[in-house]
Amino acid sequence: MITTIQDVLKEFKSDMERMEHRIHESLGTDVELIRQVSKYILGAGGKRFRPLLHLLSARLCGYRDHSAEYTLGGVVEFIHTASLLHDDVIDEAKVRRGKSSANSLWGNQASILVGDYLYSKALYHGVRLQNQRVMDVLSETTTTMSEGEVLQLMQIQNIDITETDYYRLVECKTGVLISASCRLGAIIGKAPLSQEDALTAYGKKLGYAFQITDDTLDYAADQKQLGKVLGKDLAEGKVTLPLIYAIRKATLEEKGRLGEILQAEAMADADLGYTIGIMEKYDTVNEALAVAQSFSDGAKADLNLFPDSPPRQALLALADYVVQREM
Amino acid sequence: MITTIQDVLKEFKSDMERMEHRIHESLGTDVELIRQVSKYILGAGGKRFRPLLHLLSARLCGYRDHSAEYTLGGVVEFIHTASLLHDDVIDEAKVRRGKSSANSLWGNQASILVGDYLYSKALYHGVRLQNQRVMDVLSETTTTMSEGEVLQLMQIQNIDITETDYYRLVECKTGVLISASCRLGAIIGKAPLSQEDALTAYGKKLGYAFQITDDTLDYAADQKQLGKVLGKDLAEGKVTLPLIYAIRKATLEEKGRLGEILQAEAMADADLGYTIGIMEKYDTVNEALAVAQSFSDGAKADLNLFPDSPPRQALLALADYVVQREM
Repeated sequence: MITTIQDVLKEFKSDMERMEHRIHESLGTDVELIRQVSKYILGAGGKRFRPLLHLLSARLCGYRDHSAEYTLGGVVEFIHTASLLHDDVIDEAKVRRGKSSANSLWGNQASILVGDYLYSKALYHGVRLQNQRVMDVLSETTTTMSEGEVLQLMQIQNIDITETDYYRLVECKTGVLISASCRLGAIIGKAPLSQEDALTAYGKKLGYAFQITDDTLDYAADQKQLGKVLGKDLAEGKVTLPLIYAIRKATLEEKGRLGEILQAEAMADADLGYTIGIMEKYDTVNEALAVAQSFSDGAKADLNLFPDSPPRQALLALADYVVQREM
Repeated sequence: MITTIQDVLKEFKSDMERMEHRIHESLGTDVELIRQVSKYILGAGGKRFRPLLHLLSARLCGYRDHSAEYTLGGVVEFIHTASLLHDDVIDEAKVRRGKSSANSLWGNQASILVGDYLYSKALYHGVRLQNQRVMDVLSETTTTMSEGEVLQLMQIQNIDITETDYYRLVECKTGVLISASCRLGAIIGKAPLSQEDALTAYGKKLGYAFQITDDTLDYAADQKQLGKVLGKDLAEGKVTLPLIYAIRKATLEEKGRLGEILQAEAMADADLGYTIGIMEKYDTVNEALAVAQSFSDGAKADLNLFPDSPPRQALLALADYVVQREM
């Protein structure tokens, strides 16, 4: 019985090792700088969450060919990695997963261009599967993701961002690629549309649960364990769900102060402390975590139409995992 | 009889107006910042050279459906425009075609992300044609282009760059997309492979002729007319063909001075004057232009297997035009 993330990783260990091999193999270039930067960012503690979801979804739908799943696992990981490279340039990030960011080591230029390369190479490998539905999903996914990045840029430092705006950002930034990773598994598994829809819905809710939890960790994480810097979103002017809830409940005076902190050029420790204090006062981290939990529950319910199997057990375990990452 | 660029633009005026309409229409987003930046960069004096080549190639191969040619014209223009947006960030360019660059107006972040959007949207429209060969060509093209951008970054300030290295950069940066624009016309025109190969070869040589001429204009252009700043490549540390020839012929002392200029943080007018002086001494701009002319001649010869027709006359006229742009 697979119930924890450790069980999942153990059960699918050899599959994920083959996946890992294929991801590195499919980089395929003789340009040294691309190899260096890609190897670094691909190797820098990535959990291969999207390739794993894709593989499990394909297996859940009875896919047994063991070829396209590795290709598409690499494709979704390349798209994810490319977006991280560009994100870190946009955010002027110095750190990614507890290590120096690629842009701080090789500069913005290399990060932008290697990101472009990884996008192109993802497309390249996707196209070679000669599957129209795969390409339909991939092209819709990258378009929505890039729209979301621009939307996020427009919402920087906006204290009046609505919960609806926030959910659209989460969907674009995180939801669609995780959802696509699952859906593509159903497509190569030649699943009936009802199963494809169920996995698409599962992935979307999982993405919401994942991102909302991640957004709470910005205010509550154990810094050492997750390699995250507290208050990074706040310093970058990104208003996420626990802050939206805090702003909604704050007094006029508190809201004014939060607005100043959000719009300041630089953030002091006292500013982060004040913000976390407001969040604790109104218990908004837990409020946001409850929303993440309900998305996780919803994701699990979407798997009801599948009979019990190791991949289904694994997908259920992952839905639990994404809301428990702080532990 | 079509013999000049003016003849071409007159003969295909209504087609290119429909193309223009389609390009703007296919942007399709409700995100205001994407619309603003895209509209600006797409409207900023672009000649629609690649869409025109695509349309003429399709017509030359007997394509009469008038649908895919507008879609793919937009696709190649989006890919080109996305690369310009990212290039200007990489080069920290202030000016593009005599107007402020997008990055100087909206910042690097918007330029990077809108570039990503245009790449994605190009892919999106390409995929919707449901033509595997079209996607094969597009995915190879963008992969090669992004490799070329990284290669160029690695060759910055390299005074020992070889002519072979330079040609590889030209092929990646300019050759493959122009070549693909022509080839895609043959593909949707369902041309025999011999014609597809001929148009691919024509496009590649045209791209070389275009880029080499462009590189000479950096040292010899009428600044006002072309909206170009003299010495831009030199200031950015990019070693192009006229400079490669100058370095090859220079005395040791001259080469030493050219190396210093290339590697300097900032370029003074006197540095540009000195470099142009060396080029004039060894007549290397004309030497490079002669190479461009031979590529243009070669491109025209590739069209020999097609019978005379308005599109063929137009493609021949364009081959003449690309090496005469300084006039």
